Amino acid sequence: MPKQVDHEQRRVQIAEALQRLTTRAGLEGVSLRQVAAEAGLSMGSVQHYFRTKDEMLRYALEHRHKLRSERITAKVLAEGPPTPRSILRACLVEMLPRDPDSEADFLIGVAYFIRAVADPAMAKAFGEGMPELLAFFAGQVREAQQAGDVPASADPETEASLLWAIADSQGSEILMGHRTPAQAVSTVDYYLDRLFTP
Amino acid sequence: MPKQVDHEQRRVQIAEALQRLTTRAGLEGVSLRQVAAEAGLSMGSVQHYFRTKDEMLRYALEHRHKLRSERITAKVLAEGPPTPRSILRACLVEMLPRDPDSEADFLIGVAYFIRAVADPAMAKAFGEGMPELLAFFAGQVREAQQAGDVPASADPETEASLLWAIADSQGSEILMGHRTPAQAVSTVDYYLDRLFTP
Repeated sequence: MPKQVDHEQRRVQIAEALQRLTTRAGLEGVSLRQVAAEAGLSMGSVQHYFRTKDEMLRYALEHRHKLRSERITAKVLAEGPPTPRSILRACLVEMLPRDPDSEADFLIGVAYFIRAVADPAMAKAFGEGMPELLAFFAGQVREAQQAGDVPASADPETEASLLWAIADSQGSEILMGHRTPAQAVSTVDYYLDRLFTP
Repeated sequence: MPKQVDHEQRRVQIAEALQRLTTRAGLEGVSLRQVAAEAGLSMGSVQHYFRTKDEMLRYALEHRHKLRSERITAKVLAEGPPTPRSILRACLVEMLPRDPDSEADFLIGVAYFIRAVADPAMAKAFGEGMPELLAFFAGQVREAQQAGDVPASADPETEASLLWAIADSQGSEILMGHRTPAQAVSTVDYYLDRLFTP
């Protein structure tokens, strides 16, 4: 189905243009016209794929998640046989803004958060990916418990929320220059050291 | 010095007007004119105290922190002799948006965060209160270690960052309706249970 692939490529092209334009100044100043120009497409073509900036933003976020998953998988596999700890560590570290690329990723999340605070429909859409991610984290914790690497007393669902909180909050602190990426990574390792105490 | 007190009251009056106007829609739509009307003051009077919305926002944030500290102190003392654990718990729970008042407080923080992401000067100002707060948290952990209530292996500074992260990230999740206040409070207790393991 070459036609289908082409549509998908066009959406990615638009999402990436939006991401390049969404800097620290946020989404508010970005117009559909600018996105079209940045993507090298006509306004009509952009509007064929996305009706609103919010739709575009949502797609950009999903696209970013997909790329990140691929990067995490590649990274974990490159380190040798994956373990729950190496998988969780890679997920958390990958979420942190550590270089221009990961900062751009984090900023798309911030843009989404800003819209979600103002708009319950956006908040709902933003939240749709959360249960899946948290369930994945909880599953890794559970697997480590079965292997005897995490105490049976740990609650996998609460651990998943804590792991998310660490990367989420520290990512914001890095963005504001209150914390260095190295400090944030060392906090992630500190937390994992304590969690993975048989 | 009655004159001095009057100036301070005027600033509080303006800060509270700004806070009432800063809803989920954020600061962007709020004009100095609206703040003046909401505070029942003239534009000139507001401009005498604050040159920009950002100055006002900063003052509102400091004012909010002061009120929160007073509430936390009152709450902790009402529960009996304060302990590091009761103090830390009160600080974290008080940060979470649990009712319209604490939600308004959290939203002022979000408004500040949104500005700070776009503006390094705002980020720097926002970050000025952080070391003091983190040092306070670390001090409580250290005190608990000396009393034998927290393992000596815990690192007080890293614990302070983790405690902040839990309240910060979960507050955002509550705001977006992804998490209930009760779930967030129970996550705080879960974390403190593990930290306070002699």
